[in-house]
Amino acid sequence: MPKIDVCFSPNLLNLYHLETKIVVIVDILRATSCIVAGLGSHVKSIFPVATLEECKALENEGYICAGERNGHRVEGFALGNSPFEYMNEAVKGKKIAMTTTNGTQALVMSQNAKQILIGAFLNLSALANYLKEQPDDVLIVCAGWKGKFCIEDSLFAGALAEKLHDSFECADDSTLAAITLYNFSKNNLYEYLLQSSHYKRLSYLEGGKDVEFCIEIDKFAVVPYLKGREIFV
Amino acid sequence: MPKIDVCFSPNLLNLYHLETKIVVIVDILRATSCIVAGLGSHVKSIFPVATLEECKALENEGYICAGERNGHRVEGFALGNSPFEYMNEAVKGKKIAMTTTNGTQALVMSQNAKQILIGAFLNLSALANYLKEQPDDVLIVCAGWKGKFCIEDSLFAGALAEKLHDSFECADDSTLAAITLYNFSKNNLYEYLLQSSHYKRLSYLEGGKDVEFCIEIDKFAVVPYLKGREIFV
Repeated sequence: MPKIDVCFSPNLLNLYHLETKIVVIVDILRATSCIVAGLGSHVKSIFPVATLEECKALENEGYICAGERNGHRVEGFALGNSPFEYMNEAVKGKKIAMTTTNGTQALVMSQNAKQILIGAFLNLSALANYLKEQPDDVLIVCAGWKGKFCIEDSLFAGALAEKLHDSFECADDSTLAAITLYNFSKNNLYEYLLQSSHYKRLSYLEGGKDVEFCIEIDKFAVVPYLKGREIFV
Repeated sequence: MPKIDVCFSPNLLNLYHLETKIVVIVDILRATSCIVAGLGSHVKSIFPVATLEECKALENEGYICAGERNGHRVEGFALGNSPFEYMNEAVKGKKIAMTTTNGTQALVMSQNAKQILIGAFLNLSALANYLKEQPDDVLIVCAGWKGKFCIEDSLFAGALAEKLHDSFECADDSTLAAITLYNFSKNNLYEYLLQSSHYKRLSYLEGGKDVEFCIEIDKFAVVPYLKGREIFV
């Protein structure tokens, strides 16, 4: 039986052997939710980068630039970091270059993995069904917040681990903790997240509507994967 | 209002500014439980070291050597790693040198902190009462298991944070998660720990009796602290 494990921070990734594993990257607020929403709404591909400069440079290659700094869309960028912007008619069939700090760090640090997939509540069941068909161990990598533990990513890890419970062996205590946290809060996920530090940061930025959307389950039946440095479905 | 935060692994300690904080080191199975049990039973002091060689070298300075490898007391050492051995009449008034890997790593990596205290379920209330009287921020440092998240340390972090809830501001999501995990499991702590990876390791070694003891609350009203490289009450 393959194993499932949860890594609560990219800063702990050096403790894991990724070469034989499928890694699921999670950054619920809001990078991986945006990616799932976009690719689920027929965006062609998404290229995550760490800096504004890298993002801007991709504009010349036909990418639409997306990104925020301090809660405001970057000047000259077409999109911010709200999942709703990734679902607009205007971006269908287009390639997006997105700036993200925590999400990109998690992706870059996971690059030795056998496969890299993108997870969010928005594609929970599609992802779980795909993983059940694979023979490999799974590591759910929470992007966290500047290297620290982040509750919404961990809750998603618990939701996914719970769905895979019968088909995988839970490898470590982090998986047990994530499942417990999810089962404790799943009937009041939004209320529970009101206590989180990220929600407090986002709510200052009027991101409450984004949070509500990002915890909706199974809006999209896509399993985005990293190929090279770009994400496709 | 001072802040309380939880660090789930020594490998994440570089994300925190320790200079102004009181750090509480936690290694429930079994280093910090042994320290509290020993100093609460009139052991004179405890010197934690990482290697057998360092431990053995302290024997010449009058220390009793304590340590296990692969579940067996080290050959030539007077004590193993069970808290019961630290409570024997024979060690009263004596200095103990103990080998511990996770616990020592957490102590060494926290050395810039304003104060370093030792926490366990065995001294939960004494520790909480002491911390309430201090003006400083508190960081609970879980020793973890080889750098990874460890459930029993996190449950203790939740128990302590819960006790300090009224007097401290909960700084981050890790504190919220720890409190949730503790409140979920506190009425069935032993049964919950049966699922943990560490319990499974220890139970192979017939450590079940140790686990039961290490989750007993308030057996000792001591607050061990690090002074130099040695721990006293």
